[in-house]
Amino acid sequence: MTGDIWVIGGGVIGSLFAAHLSRVAEVTLLCRRPEHAAAVAEHGLRVSGRADFVGRPRASVDPAGLAETGLVIVATKANDVEAAAARLEGRLGDATVMTVQNGLGAEEVVRRYGSWPQLSAVTFMSGTKLADDHVEYVLDTPTWIAPYEDAPFATAAETASLIVEAGLKAEAMPDLKPARWSKLIFNATVNSVAALTGLPHDHHFAELDRPSDLGHLVRGLMDEGKRIASAAGISLREDPWEMNVLATQRGSRHYPSMLEDVEAQRPTEVDFITGALVREAERRGVEAPLMAAVYGLIKGREASYL
Amino acid sequence: MTGDIWVIGGGVIGSLFAAHLSRVAEVTLLCRRPEHAAAVAEHGLRVSGRADFVGRPRASVDPAGLAETGLVIVATKANDVEAAAARLEGRLGDATVMTVQNGLGAEEVVRRYGSWPQLSAVTFMSGTKLADDHVEYVLDTPTWIAPYEDAPFATAAETASLIVEAGLKAEAMPDLKPARWSKLIFNATVNSVAALTGLPHDHHFAELDRPSDLGHLVRGLMDEGKRIASAAGISLREDPWEMNVLATQRGSRHYPSMLEDVEAQRPTEVDFITGALVREAERRGVEAPLMAAVYGLIKGREASYL
Repeated sequence: MTGDIWVIGGGVIGSLFAAHLSRVAEVTLLCRRPEHAAAVAEHGLRVSGRADFVGRPRASVDPAGLAETGLVIVATKANDVEAAAARLEGRLGDATVMTVQNGLGAEEVVRRYGSWPQLSAVTFMSGTKLADDHVEYVLDTPTWIAPYEDAPFATAAETASLIVEAGLKAEAMPDLKPARWSKLIFNATVNSVAALTGLPHDHHFAELDRPSDLGHLVRGLMDEGKRIASAAGISLREDPWEMNVLATQRGSRHYPSMLEDVEAQRPTEVDFITGALVREAERRGVEAPLMAAVYGLIKGREASYL
Repeated sequence: MTGDIWVIGGGVIGSLFAAHLSRVAEVTLLCRRPEHAAAVAEHGLRVSGRADFVGRPRASVDPAGLAETGLVIVATKANDVEAAAARLEGRLGDATVMTVQNGLGAEEVVRRYGSWPQLSAVTFMSGTKLADDHVEYVLDTPTWIAPYEDAPFATAAETASLIVEAGLKAEAMPDLKPARWSKLIFNATVNSVAALTGLPHDHHFAELDRPSDLGHLVRGLMDEGKRIASAAGISLREDPWEMNVLATQRGSRHYPSMLEDVEAQRPTEVDFITGALVREAERRGVEAPLMAAVYGLIKGREASYL
């Protein structure tokens, strides 16, 4: 990799990457809104919580300069990957493009716009956007990175090293599927149930005492996810139900992004998360009635306000 | 039947009964809030929409006088039947008690408080409460009335006649189960899906074009309901899916009460509607994973605000 790094998308994940990486590389944060870029250019990008510093990435709404970059991190919401990839088309030199979206499908979308080497990533870190120039770093869990198609493993390893040097957790691995699918099943379930109930990811998600307790549905959804993964030939890295029990025992009360989306009446990422699993189930001939049910309910919820 | 009529509960259904019946009988509306009783006593009870008049029931928060009544209509929400029945205990003479709640179980609750002759009713009429003393009459669909346990059919027939004379639609029948279960399955599905999605009962509920369309879930829930009814030995009076298609084609966009309840962050009637079906399924050994899923989600939604 040569040159500087561009991060596309200044949400929680993009902001955490841009601020941290600006301590070890030249970083440009490509924003959608001019006032967002102006705030970061003027004040820097403050990180609080797990770390405490002000990063100094460049910030812009103008993609000019992308030709010189060595690494692009596409950190938009899944719904916006298509637009981000379209901005890269014809502009990138021999840069590597890393996608880090929830769910499935971001790599394929980017590939349609160019033949760059690509990295697949899935991140477990989380935070809260407090302002355009301030992100709270909440969970310092790692980002896992693997080559997509025939990209060299060395690129994944170098990128992970750079991210670790910048103060975040990262790990390169030859195959992302076992980790990604564990997170996908976890996310499809926890995000959907949170969005439909209004509950943060709390103790209700693991309760099994009474027949109407929510843990039964959560476990049923995860069991369907595991059957879909198995039919797709994936060995999960972690058991999603154990991830769920552990997280709720720790008392995190994490506010899943899909719940934030429906409360703010924004489009959700459900098509890329729960929807991706439902489509995979159909392709593999696996029955997934509960997953299809919560998918339909979230689409209905979106229809109520979109 | 002798004496006057008492209506307990001044919601939409109670107000419609009290206002209409006050044109053909002495009616007392027993309210929970003194200001509600005062408003009706002062201004009368206005009905607009399908009818247009001001009814003149007496209104009170005091159950004294119940001893003289011939008919009590318990028109509270399902959650409040227990409290209403407790107020009747030791007060009623030889009155007949008619329950008209959504779902199952109201008759059994009332029976625990006295050995009065009882009528089972299910009503399809609907409206909107515009003020304590004003109800909009929206759907002029009938109320069906049948004897409960060994009450004489003649009492059901007389009551239906009186209601018809008052300007509402009503029909007496020897066995309410086929009608009640049709409505139960319809309600358990439509109310739950509306409460979870935020959609009124509109065209989305019958759409089947795309795999994520809501009609698939609606039909799946109703299919489970029909299997439960069948295992319970009930022949449905109407097919709930056809009721759903017909209602949405008519473009009613009805706002189901459970959706109103979750939006106002009130307890819902889910335990008496969807929950009643889930318990019946367990009792009969019928698989009902979708019904259990939406039941668990609504209970989770309640837990998020109660």
